[in-house]
Amino acid sequence: MNTVTNVSECRQAITAARKSGKSIGFVPTMGGLHEGHASLIRRSRDAGDFVVVSIFVNPTQFGAGEDFSRYPRPIENDAALCRSSGCSLLFNPEVSEIYPPGDETRVRPGRLADGMCGPFRPGHFEGVCTVVARLFNIVQPDTAYFGQKDAQQAVIIRRMVADLRFPTRIEVCPIVREPDGLAMSTRNAYLSPEQRKQAASLYRGLRTGQELIQRGERNAGKVVFAIRAVLDDAGPSHIDYIAVVDPETLAEQDEISPPVMIALAVRLEGARLIDNLIVTK
Amino acid sequence: MNTVTNVSECRQAITAARKSGKSIGFVPTMGGLHEGHASLIRRSRDAGDFVVVSIFVNPTQFGAGEDFSRYPRPIENDAALCRSSGCSLLFNPEVSEIYPPGDETRVRPGRLADGMCGPFRPGHFEGVCTVVARLFNIVQPDTAYFGQKDAQQAVIIRRMVADLRFPTRIEVCPIVREPDGLAMSTRNAYLSPEQRKQAASLYRGLRTGQELIQRGERNAGKVVFAIRAVLDDAGPSHIDYIAVVDPETLAEQDEISPPVMIALAVRLEGARLIDNLIVTK
Repeated sequence: MNTVTNVSECRQAITAARKSGKSIGFVPTMGGLHEGHASLIRRSRDAGDFVVVSIFVNPTQFGAGEDFSRYPRPIENDAALCRSSGCSLLFNPEVSEIYPPGDETRVRPGRLADGMCGPFRPGHFEGVCTVVARLFNIVQPDTAYFGQKDAQQAVIIRRMVADLRFPTRIEVCPIVREPDGLAMSTRNAYLSPEQRKQAASLYRGLRTGQELIQRGERNAGKVVFAIRAVLDDAGPSHIDYIAVVDPETLAEQDEISPPVMIALAVRLEGARLIDNLIVTK
Repeated sequence: MNTVTNVSECRQAITAARKSGKSIGFVPTMGGLHEGHASLIRRSRDAGDFVVVSIFVNPTQFGAGEDFSRYPRPIENDAALCRSSGCSLLFNPEVSEIYPPGDETRVRPGRLADGMCGPFRPGHFEGVCTVVARLFNIVQPDTAYFGQKDAQQAVIIRRMVADLRFPTRIEVCPIVREPDGLAMSTRNAYLSPEQRKQAASLYRGLRTGQELIQRGERNAGKVVFAIRAVLDDAGPSHIDYIAVVDPETLAEQDEISPPVMIALAVRLEGARLIDNLIVTK
């Protein structure tokens, strides 16, 4: 595995790989890597790609008062995980490599960014689209791999790639969970032992909602109410939203018509957690 | 010269050319081609490129009440001009090829779009950036050629390419003028014979400003006043702006410090014309 920190070195290494006939796989990350990231890297490796992983804590996707400065940056552990998972090239740029002096161009998503996490994180998805577009132009991947945990992000990125005509295929990989069901997330590191225990209620809530829908419940309000009860029962938290949406359009469903996605965002003290589950019938 | 109308055919033809070792040159146009466009195509041909010309009247860069529907679309003449100028591949897509169903992603320029034509054409430069980004992702040119006549557009595109990390070099080519100095423009076709005569005053005004600056005038207000007098003398028109700006930042200069760009936008009945001149000393 090679590590590069600037755009021209990154392009050179990828051009050489492409000339040798390799497909280019890309896993963009903000570091703080865990098994979820590892599953994306392995997926790309198993597809036979030359696997490029970027580690870049993207300032434009953090709002004022969010956790940009304290976001974990354990670069040595991250590099080791990349290496052991099959990464070919680690791209770890400074901010000025991605946002050059005088920078002002942004990629703006549309209505897909209006719901779910959008209102709670103004500008977040514009920051995500802006950095992913830049990274795609640097890496020019044949396939890019994203995690289903960030479900709204995945839908918005798919839309951006279709709209802006990127020659890149998007593959969204399943959520990797801890034994108690908590979705792997870099931000889980923020949790105290007590909060960590409480956090398992997100998945229990989703499963409760899933069971209700599978047993025939079609009233989204009732499903949300039941999930809220599970979360409340686990301890104090601030629920940003619990939503039942179309998995492709992200439109909220009042009358449930599977397949649907149940998605939620919950703030425990110091950590905002998201999770989701797709219910197919 | 081949002509293609869809994205996948376009990509195939370009991939084949690239594999044969050719650099890819790209001249994005809205058709209604004239000698200005021909100079860009010839420039790319002379550089040894596989020359891709797109003809696409981009709806998102026209405002409400602007001339989208009546914009000239003389495709047969355009194709002939492309062929004779050295175009290798003409890409002439339908709107749905560039704006797929459900499209909503936009590329947003920053403050460079705030001055000059920006306030008079809300959303125009966002439309330009959005279509150019899409076309760049389809064509993936090594070099793209733009005309200096659209000076603000050229600066914004350069900025976008640097910011979004497109692997494309931008080359801006000189304005091509009619014998009386009028800058070539598709929209000149809108002018009546009388207006056509009056339109030569734009270049006369720019030259007047240039002479003043070259003789030592450093007060931008006085230069603008003199240009305005030349325009007014030629007949009734509506002047959107006359500005003396930094050629790279587009910042207005009150106290002139060459090199500067004198730029103006003037509406004669039914046609909005722009022109500019860079004064180097």
